[in-house]
Amino acid sequence: MPIDLDLPVDDLTAALCDVPSVSGAEGPLADAVEAALRRVPHLRVDRDGDCVVARTELGRPERVVVAGHLDTVPVAGNLPVRREGGDLVGRGTCDMKGGVAVALRLAAHVPGPVRDVTYVLYDHEEVEAARNGLGRVARTHPEWLDGDFAILMEPSLAGVEGGCNGTLRAEVTTRGTAAHSARSWTGHNAIHDAGEVLRRLADYAPQSREVDGLVYREGLNAVGIRGGIAGNVVPDLCVVTVNFRFAPDRSEEQAAQHVREVLDGYEVAVVDSAPGARPGLDHPAAAAFVAAVGEEPRPKYGWTDVARFSALGVPAVNYGPGDPLLAHKDDERVPVEHLHRCERRLREWLGA
Amino acid sequence: MPIDLDLPVDDLTAALCDVPSVSGAEGPLADAVEAALRRVPHLRVDRDGDCVVARTELGRPERVVVAGHLDTVPVAGNLPVRREGGDLVGRGTCDMKGGVAVALRLAAHVPGPVRDVTYVLYDHEEVEAARNGLGRVARTHPEWLDGDFAILMEPSLAGVEGGCNGTLRAEVTTRGTAAHSARSWTGHNAIHDAGEVLRRLADYAPQSREVDGLVYREGLNAVGIRGGIAGNVVPDLCVVTVNFRFAPDRSEEQAAQHVREVLDGYEVAVVDSAPGARPGLDHPAAAAFVAAVGEEPRPKYGWTDVARFSALGVPAVNYGPGDPLLAHKDDERVPVEHLHRCERRLREWLGA
Repeated sequence: MPIDLDLPVDDLTAALCDVPSVSGAEGPLADAVEAALRRVPHLRVDRDGDCVVARTELGRPERVVVAGHLDTVPVAGNLPVRREGGDLVGRGTCDMKGGVAVALRLAAHVPGPVRDVTYVLYDHEEVEAARNGLGRVARTHPEWLDGDFAILMEPSLAGVEGGCNGTLRAEVTTRGTAAHSARSWTGHNAIHDAGEVLRRLADYAPQSREVDGLVYREGLNAVGIRGGIAGNVVPDLCVVTVNFRFAPDRSEEQAAQHVREVLDGYEVAVVDSAPGARPGLDHPAAAAFVAAVGEEPRPKYGWTDVARFSALGVPAVNYGPGDPLLAHKDDERVPVEHLHRCERRLREWLGA
Repeated sequence: MPIDLDLPVDDLTAALCDVPSVSGAEGPLADAVEAALRRVPHLRVDRDGDCVVARTELGRPERVVVAGHLDTVPVAGNLPVRREGGDLVGRGTCDMKGGVAVALRLAAHVPGPVRDVTYVLYDHEEVEAARNGLGRVARTHPEWLDGDFAILMEPSLAGVEGGCNGTLRAEVTTRGTAAHSARSWTGHNAIHDAGEVLRRLADYAPQSREVDGLVYREGLNAVGIRGGIAGNVVPDLCVVTVNFRFAPDRSEEQAAQHVREVLDGYEVAVVDSAPGARPGLDHPAAAAFVAAVGEEPRPKYGWTDVARFSALGVPAVNYGPGDPLLAHKDDERVPVEHLHRCERRLREWLGA
């Protein structure tokens, strides 16, 4: 299924969405993207797994990275894409094939940008951090990601969202003693004990923390719970999975410590974490981009891969079409106007 | 694998246990039991599914039923049976192939009992009530279960345990609004709401209720909990499965009402229930048996199929080898002395 980069950005978005690419199954879409980019004469194209990297090599004094992920969360009966008013509706429209379409349009149709550009289209963003395609490339080919500044095309209402919150997952375990439920007094119910864990989470007042002039809102939630062996057994184990989204002025270690304090007295095991990224808008390249886009920057709440660029020493912001509140929703959508506006602003910034 | 009913009752118990018969897989054991009973000339043998029924037909003025289930909970590395001190240790020794061995010994070796006897060995006791083999026979061949009195060979420390508690399972559901956990304030966490359900269960003070002179201890427990879609989603659903074991003076409807009152304000759906059985020890046949056994009767806490006999108008008690507290445990066991004592007492009562 070839992809035509001459399509207008909205039609290109729909075409990208209609090749399903749930995390782990990005292959067909990555193949199509690679083939399309290899047909563009002014680009050098590399590939690592299902990550496709294309770059101009014009010897410009500055290099910028434009990155987006190819994968989506599972499809929920919301493909193929349909049009509704001025929106494209369907899985991936918002998070984030709209942004990918903008990047591919620039890659194909801006042959002589004033800044060299590296386009990174990658895999496994919607799953655990260890499988992230951008993280893998940062380990295997860090030079592919070199740059003075990076733009991650996460949905941000076509405005600039600086930095991002960090994210941490932990398992909170309660342990009891199994017994036949007909003689429950001979056991100790681990699920009942988890009630206090849930009460603390329900009572928890999340903080809003100002970092470099932007205010980051945190959140601490149970995202899973499991317990029980059979309908007639007092369970001896219950596991609550919690997710802490923390402001970028906390390190991963400080975030883990905070979760342990909130759940003091319980067995807490961190299973996955990723640091946040400070907004870094004082960096000259970032400031120049913000000025070019002409929008007041806002904080980014969700963890995004700007943190990976941040860790590589590349300042990065989120900038892309679509409302992040609609990401992962069954009715996710992107305004066609956002697609055109993002493409136009980036073209102007690249001097095309 | 033929079963030899001439073995002493302890060896017969071990032989029965070493043919695994987890609920749903009773076939091979039921086949062996049926074949062994068909070799006994003084018995008429019938079969329904994996339930085997054998009876004397001597025209005695009184008929008693001796019943036991063939199935066990899943094996936990505790087969084959081993001997430890005076015990047989392994899956099924206590619950309840020890009792089944006693019944099979009586069936084969008491050709002329003073009361006609119906031996009922059945399937699917350890799973949901709807699949219970005794319940199935009560629907398909109720005449097979006719009798003046029934003895269910559930483990009862070789003493008489009258009646049984009822049991009810219900699902308690909390509903919220899904959201990306990075913007959790746009959703509502259903797992957090379940905390109050668990708190009420933890705070619940179970009652002890006197019924016909015996005191029944109740229990209300979460036996399962599940919630959560993905590690980055505020969950919109959490389901707590609760099990209420209730004294036999409450009807199923009253028990359900009680659970609804305890969990007032929550969505409660009863998924499975079975009534208790009053001890009924004032019935002449029951009183005669208790006198013959010579033990002070106690209440039965666990739900047992005496309730099914009770519903058919047949007074019934639990009487069998083994400690009910060890049922379903990985180290379940039965004292060999219990096996011999139960066989001896029942032989005497049957006039052999």
